Amino acid sequence: MVSAETHIVDGTCYQCRTDRMHVCQNMEILGVDRDGVFAEYVALPERNAWRNDPALDPAIASLQEPLGNAVQSALPRNNVEDVAGKNVAVLGCGPIGLMAVAVLKTLGAAKVFATGGGRNKVRMELAKKSGADLVLNAREEGEDLVKIIREATDGDGVDVALEMSGSPVAVRQAFEILTPGGRVSLLGILERPLELDLNDAVIFRAATIFGIHGRRMFETWYQAKGLLSKPEFRSRIASVITHRLPMKDVAEGVELINSKQAGKVLLEPKWE
Amino acid sequence: MVSAETHIVDGTCYQCRTDRMHVCQNMEILGVDRDGVFAEYVALPERNAWRNDPALDPAIASLQEPLGNAVQSALPRNNVEDVAGKNVAVLGCGPIGLMAVAVLKTLGAAKVFATGGGRNKVRMELAKKSGADLVLNAREEGEDLVKIIREATDGDGVDVALEMSGSPVAVRQAFEILTPGGRVSLLGILERPLELDLNDAVIFRAATIFGIHGRRMFETWYQAKGLLSKPEFRSRIASVITHRLPMKDVAEGVELINSKQAGKVLLEPKWE
Amino acid sequence: MVSAETHIVDGTCYQCRTDRMHVCQNMEILGVDRDGVFAEYVALPERNAWRNDPALDPAIASLQEPLGNAVQSALPRNNVEDVAGKNVAVLGCGPIGLMAVAVLKTLGAAKVFATGGGRNKVRMELAKKSGADLVLNAREEGEDLVKIIREATDGDGVDVALEMSGSPVAVRQAFEILTPGGRVSLLGILERPLELDLNDAVIFRAATIFGIHGRRMFETWYQAKGLLSKPEFRSRIASVITHRLPMKDVAEGVELINSKQAGKVLLEPKWE
Amino acid sequence: MVSAETHIVDGTCYQCRTDRMHVCQNMEILGVDRDGVFAEYVALPERNAWRNDPALDPAIASLQEPLGNAVQSALPRNNVEDVAGKNVAVLGCGPIGLMAVAVLKTLGAAKVFATGGGRNKVRMELAKKSGADLVLNAREEGEDLVKIIREATDGDGVDVALEMSGSPVAVRQAFEILTPGGRVSLLGILERPLELDLNDAVIFRAATIFGIHGRRMFETWYQAKGLLSKPEFRSRIASVITHRLPMKDVAEGVELINSKQAGKVLLEPKWE
Repeated sequence: MVSAETHIVDGTCYQCRTDRMHVCQNMEILGVDRDGVFAEYVALPERNAWRNDPALDPAIASLQEPLGNAVQSALPRNNVEDVAGKNVAVLGCGPIGLMAVAVLKTLGAAKVFATGGGRNKVRMELAKKSGADLVLNAREEGEDLVKIIREATDGDGVDVALEMSGSPVAVRQAFEILTPGGRVSLLGILERPLELDLNDAVIFRAATIFGIHGRRMFETWYQAKGLLSKPEFRSRIASVITHRLPMKDVAEGVELINSKQAGKVLLEPKWE
Repeated sequence: MVSAETHIVDGTCYQCRTDRMHVCQNMEILGVDRDGVFAEYVALPERNAWRNDPALDPAIASLQEPLGNAVQSALPRNNVEDVAGKNVAVLGCGPIGLMAVAVLKTLGAAKVFATGGGRNKVRMELAKKSGADLVLNAREEGEDLVKIIREATDGDGVDVALEMSGSPVAVRQAFEILTPGGRVSLLGILERPLELDLNDAVIFRAATIFGIHGRRMFETWYQAKGLLSKPEFRSRIASVITHRLPMKDVAEGVELINSKQAGKVLLEPKWE
Repeated sequence: MVSAETHIVDGTCYQCRTDRMHVCQNMEILGVDRDGVFAEYVALPERNAWRNDPALDPAIASLQEPLGNAVQSALPRNNVEDVAGKNVAVLGCGPIGLMAVAVLKTLGAAKVFATGGGRNKVRMELAKKSGADLVLNAREEGEDLVKIIREATDGDGVDVALEMSGSPVAVRQAFEILTPGGRVSLLGILERPLELDLNDAVIFRAATIFGIHGRRMFETWYQAKGLLSKPEFRSRIASVITHRLPMKDVAEGVELINSKQAGKVLLEPKWE
Repeated sequence: MVSAETHIVDGTCYQCRTDRMHVCQNMEILGVDRDGVFAEYVALPERNAWRNDPALDPAIASLQEPLGNAVQSALPRNNVEDVAGKNVAVLGCGPIGLMAVAVLKTLGAAKVFATGGGRNKVRMELAKKSGADLVLNAREEGEDLVKIIREATDGDGVDVALEMSGSPVAVRQAFEILTPGGRVSLLGILERPLELDLNDAVIFRAATIFGIHGRRMFETWYQAKGLLSKPEFRSRIASVITHRLPMKDVAEGVELINSKQAGKVLLEPKWE
């Protein structure tokens, strides 16, 4: 049983030859540049087929593409930047944000804060289940959100902020709650260009920002494999799955996602 | 309530001014170069007094000096080198080795192997309690130890080995079980110079070795603080404490340690 | 003879105790929060007095504060991120940008590109003298600037971009010329919040951004010391000094700077 | 015109998939495990053929395999560990040691010390030409060598030591001259296991050791490419070539190397 790394790379460009295959100059992404998602079969280069532990539940195995995004956000570089004993905030409680919470707790982050937009009560419940120490409703707390997080971190702010929502408000908050010299991972795609006070957000704060796209091939997969070998992690991650549908009901699944009342929605081919 | 960082540094040498205070050129260590351990009072520079969370159990707080060694072995540099999802071996189940096991499990290492000399049955039991996935008796397994660990890691060997025993056999095994490109932390002090095949152990294997001495001041302390804020870590660490004696019985405590039938032995001043 | 590190820090906050003194939470900066620049005397904490090689020309010694910014932009972290053999662009040819060019060439960057606004012909000449391989007039080249730099880097774009101008156009160009997975240091202060397409600039490009503020205390100073021990570096850096005035003529010096027709303007106290 | 990376890797093992191809578990090395050196033709996997700048002198291009070792010794990891402004010693003035001197000077090391065994007067001359600031005769200086280097570094010792000789004496000296917290790259192959005082050499000194084998594929090649684009580097490197022979005279070339009176000996196929 294999899982698919969805980024098909050329293997020969500057990026591919310097441990950055995930930003290959001639990349094709399954479901974007090529067929292969929401499908029962897909043809893949051998390199892109990740061999799973045969004992791994296929439902969990199927999460590895977004799980890799979550791991890559937490650990954006190979062996550099960790979350050990650090205070971390996850802004956005979509499926990848929820998985990030699970990853962070399993990697020994100190306090994990999760923030979400006000309408996603379901997702905020899921954030608790994934292991968040404190879940904050960005809509209800408003300005106070920054104050609450600062107070909960001895006034220092978080060491790491993972922006998983694509919301302009959340991007700005990611910096406002950040301790000087801390780092932000930006994963959420924004709808339009963002107006940002670079002086206060980045320069005077000596912040580091990591743009997150895909997952390292294949350091991130090995990290995820290590995490998935741990029962407590598998159960944290499993809590993110809220719905399972047969593959033919894909439209219903998309609707569920758009309702923001779901965590991860699984489409199941017939396993026979 | 404060804990003591036992390395008194000058604050002005090359090392102190480049984030390596723990190897200050004019260091004095409490109990080695200065009085101050096995004592009810000690005069310390303000810098060396680490302010604890008032809610922290003093017994746990008192472990932070060796705990810092364990954290420093797992995370030898600031923000570089992690153990996330990695297979790690701890060679030596003395108190610092046991704490290292607890640290590694809390930081999301995949499999944690602990090895100990044959006589320390008590300590090998403690390694299990601290969270080790597999505890191996180095004396009984002999040559097979390397084979067992290789097999348990898909034939790859461990990513990280922490040598906490000071035993020549263990130092050599740390390299034999290491995956090419892996890393070894050397903390255990050896009785005499060691004969080592640098070609096979280090060069052809492209191994990295970190000499571990003290703890980073004060990145390691903050990492330990983050870990100690987590109940599951506190209970793992607490399991290392096997004896508590009034301070006047220090001689008995030392005897217990020499018997290798103890984990950490606490000396308690009168808390009044 | 000493030089002043202008950031006065408390030495006790989270940042000061984790190797980030340069973003101390209670920082006071000479000339901003405290008196002490454009002055013949200043009272400094001992820690902030950097002892110079007695043989170092005082004119060169006086450059170390902005030189430290340039080094910090090139090498934003301690022992992580280098420029060895990399293609690098410096956007902005003010004094710190010019020094950055000198730093980069001395540190073995492959090609160093310098870009400047159209009016600063003098500064663009100085960029050549400082060692830039190619100096581009951002105003004249306009859109073509990105194309020229891409072509001069085998189509890959630069590995590192140092934004030293504070110009919104230059900030955007810093990302447009960047190879996927590359990094940008932001040093130039902007006049107002900037509208930036984070998706294209940062996320899809998997860019890393370092906010640059001050210099690491004191890793950067030691790096600068190492560079200043090299005659070829001293002469590159000396070329940035275009004017020397007695300290009483400070107003004239500021006018010269505002004219953008000067490199570094030195104010000389009476050395007697 | 291409140059050969001589390590033929499987591309699928753990090491190959985690940016450590140079220690592939199923590696075959040209001239060791396979034919292909001292030969006019060799069949290579496409991946192993490095495309050179057509303008690069073939004599220089042919140095890239050992040059890569030198670069890898100076910069043992991807983007971590630099030599910028640092004091560095190169122990051993064989061809790779000489190239390392050239690399270090071009990368902005502060002082570069080169040490060699007493008989290699020719090579010690070459070390000067390659850019060493101070060349020391290990045989003649004996014990004083450590003292001389300490004095020349303000008493601190070198930040980085590259052991390129395989001599037991040099390995020990590499640590004796090292500043606490510094790092050593071990490249020289030893004739037999070495007795080393790990306590003093590594542990109390908090030293880091990198075993050097091959070159990173292909980060190191890109770094070398960047260096080779610089005329001053090409001329430093060219000075290492002392002899050029037609390929048929390979036996004479080996004799020259064994005499230790040569730098790099080139074998020239007929370029037609």
